[in-house]
Amino acid sequence: MSGPSYSLQDLADKVNGKLIGDPEIVINAIATIQNASLGCISFLANSKYKKFLSTSSASAIIIGQEHSVELKTAGIIVDDPYAAYATLSLMFNSHRNPYAAQPVSFFVHETAKVHKSVVIGPNVYIGPGCKIEENSVIHANTSLVMNVEIGKNTIVHFNAVLGSDGFGYASNEDGYIKIEQLGKLIVGNDVEIGSGCTIDRGAIENTEIHDGVKLDNQVHIAHNVILGENSAIAASCAIAGSTIIGKNLKMGGLSGILGHLNIADNVLIGAHTLITKSIKKSGNYIGIMPAQEQKDWAKSSVFIKRRKTK
Amino acid sequence: MSGPSYSLQDLADKVNGKLIGDPEIVINAIATIQNASLGCISFLANSKYKKFLSTSSASAIIIGQEHSVELKTAGIIVDDPYAAYATLSLMFNSHRNPYAAQPVSFFVHETAKVHKSVVIGPNVYIGPGCKIEENSVIHANTSLVMNVEIGKNTIVHFNAVLGSDGFGYASNEDGYIKIEQLGKLIVGNDVEIGSGCTIDRGAIENTEIHDGVKLDNQVHIAHNVILGENSAIAASCAIAGSTIIGKNLKMGGLSGILGHLNIADNVLIGAHTLITKSIKKSGNYIGIMPAQEQKDWAKSSVFIKRRKTK
Amino acid sequence: MSGPSYSLQDLADKVNGKLIGDPEIVINAIATIQNASLGCISFLANSKYKKFLSTSSASAIIIGQEHSVELKTAGIIVDDPYAAYATLSLMFNSHRNPYAAQPVSFFVHETAKVHKSVVIGPNVYIGPGCKIEENSVIHANTSLVMNVEIGKNTIVHFNAVLGSDGFGYASNEDGYIKIEQLGKLIVGNDVEIGSGCTIDRGAIENTEIHDGVKLDNQVHIAHNVILGENSAIAASCAIAGSTIIGKNLKMGGLSGILGHLNIADNVLIGAHTLITKSIKKSGNYIGIMPAQEQKDWAKSSVFIKRRKTK
Repeated sequence: MSGPSYSLQDLADKVNGKLIGDPEIVINAIATIQNASLGCISFLANSKYKKFLSTSSASAIIIGQEHSVELKTAGIIVDDPYAAYATLSLMFNSHRNPYAAQPVSFFVHETAKVHKSVVIGPNVYIGPGCKIEENSVIHANTSLVMNVEIGKNTIVHFNAVLGSDGFGYASNEDGYIKIEQLGKLIVGNDVEIGSGCTIDRGAIENTEIHDGVKLDNQVHIAHNVILGENSAIAASCAIAGSTIIGKNLKMGGLSGILGHLNIADNVLIGAHTLITKSIKKSGNYIGIMPAQEQKDWAKSSVFIKRRKTK
Repeated sequence: MSGPSYSLQDLADKVNGKLIGDPEIVINAIATIQNASLGCISFLANSKYKKFLSTSSASAIIIGQEHSVELKTAGIIVDDPYAAYATLSLMFNSHRNPYAAQPVSFFVHETAKVHKSVVIGPNVYIGPGCKIEENSVIHANTSLVMNVEIGKNTIVHFNAVLGSDGFGYASNEDGYIKIEQLGKLIVGNDVEIGSGCTIDRGAIENTEIHDGVKLDNQVHIAHNVILGENSAIAASCAIAGSTIIGKNLKMGGLSGILGHLNIADNVLIGAHTLITKSIKKSGNYIGIMPAQEQKDWAKSSVFIKRRKTK
Repeated sequence: MSGPSYSLQDLADKVNGKLIGDPEIVINAIATIQNASLGCISFLANSKYKKFLSTSSASAIIIGQEHSVELKTAGIIVDDPYAAYATLSLMFNSHRNPYAAQPVSFFVHETAKVHKSVVIGPNVYIGPGCKIEENSVIHANTSLVMNVEIGKNTIVHFNAVLGSDGFGYASNEDGYIKIEQLGKLIVGNDVEIGSGCTIDRGAIENTEIHDGVKLDNQVHIAHNVILGENSAIAASCAIAGSTIIGKNLKMGGLSGILGHLNIADNVLIGAHTLITKSIKKSGNYIGIMPAQEQKDWAKSSVFIKRRKTK
């Protein structure tokens, strides 16, 4: 792969860092400090890797002021090496629009409005009443079912489904009467929605995903959820209908939140945990049964069940 | 959006309700009682919203007999306002076939039989030996792998996979021998299968999803499961192979049922619960560790593990 | 369906078994011992089904030496009837390439290298830098995002996403800076990846799925995971980033493993369990709260929370 290459000066300028060494050094890849080779830039974000400073083959290393005296190579001194690495990573992605070179087939309903700067992958389906604003990307094999409004600079990854029917039925003696889902799904700016996610549109009012939200793969969000800005949800979580969530939720993988709850700002939910009640104060919430070897777990299990009746 | 509009009389007739007020009032949307505006019909299904009866801007409200004296607007009196709302919601969906107006490309294997009334979305794959009966809908980007038989009036939502290979292997000294999956997946009438679901076909005999079943998004059902009629399963659940389930199962999100079990009729399983044994009597089953603040959870966790050895 | 048919001699030769009865018997299907009909071959792999030996309508039965005296029909005697059934099942699959007869449309990026023997289904997306070796199959509606390398004889099932962006961000005062994912996803030989799975490519170094791994449907594997050979993971599991797993992991459905852990060879993880710490020795690990009727669970729940403070 012959990707992009830059001078060390270019990279130092990009992150407003202080350059140490030859500004003309050519950098064509990012590598970890222990596995870097010539032409690579690396970074020291965790001091447990400091021991590699003296042996790394990196051409340059991004480093904080506090460790910079130990630098044996060229480098860039910054306040936050991890953030600087993130910023530079964008410069080494050679395929922001992988669909540019070849013809691509997708479906856009006649009532949908898609800004001309939007990138759309093959086999994307954009249904009735959808709107997509500037510089957003809808990747291959994704479906936008109906009434989905997406802001600017938002990325919807592969094989996701947005604006699907919420799971709504009224019961009668014969079984279920389907409730048609007449609301929208409103997605803000700078959102990322992972591959295989499903987000339902609202039943009457709307489902809302606010600015800056990041969803990992295979997350499910039900109808009428409101998810506050800059929330980040790990893979395989599910949030039930009509729950309202504040800003900056962080949620570990495989966790769930029941429906019709209110979750405060700045809540952290551990992995594989179910939230069954509203949360009024920020904090770190966990509800897992500790994993043990089978024979120990069996004793704990009996203990939990036996003591309940006392 | 200029969608459908109806007279209040039309709507009252549809739900066999008693009309209060001017039968010529024009209704062009459904709204919640607190947020309705002129031209909207709303409904009172939960008495905690009764306080909005006096302030709602709805043009009409669907209401039970017991609250009808408090009605300040036009209305429709019915036995079950929620069911009436569900029935009317169908009339306000303007896109039952969103694919009608534009050319659509999909794949139907030469051995598949699809009734001419079936609606098929773009990029659908319908593989060998599949059959689909009258008035069913297969939405965009869904795959029907092989030997999938679907009844009448069934909806398969977006990016689902039906009739996938069951997870079956025999072990030998080198690893695994794949067991080809030679059975069918039989789906009944009036079923809904959510976006991103996966349902395997049988290994030798069939997987069966009976009439009236409703699956939310991202549900997984393994080979040779039999799922009884009118069962409803919330998002992100998984049911392992060869389990046989009676009628009217209700299952909260992120829950699982192990394989080779028998589950009685009318069982309710809470969210985020694993069923490890057959269930012989109807009832409400739960198995979650209560979520707590991290410091409290840590104490419970130590307690569970320490006491196990006594 | 008129599928393949074989003489009993053909089948006995295939599994190196001892033929009992007429070698010319025609076999055109595999069936369970209790439901077999004329023309079917069945097998006895679990002695609880032995009672059907005398009543089965199967034309022949695959059986171990220890039960062969009880055989009432023709048969094939083998050491491992279940493995022999698995081997024969392949001969009754008439659709290894269901796409052969009809034109199929898919996307292959100009920088991707796909061996000419690879089978590709409709609507598959194969992005930049991907490589696929001999005899692998990529089924319909699957996306290979970028830098995905797949070995020989590997099957990727329907609507899966391989090589998706890992979930990586650096935080700053405004929210998140996206970390471009510059590594690869390397998948070995003889791997199966289930429908609806998502596997991220590496952030800097690679994600690796080793030879012989089998993933059921809707499994998620995050960036930089290394999953050892012959591991088998049931549906709806998730493994977080940078976890390194040995050979022969077996993992029940809906389970998770946190990130940055090390898991030894030959570990068995029960269903619906979360692994939060590295595992150094092989064994069987479980962490579920036992499911109980709601009133009993409520008592256990109170007990767990109350005792924590003592």
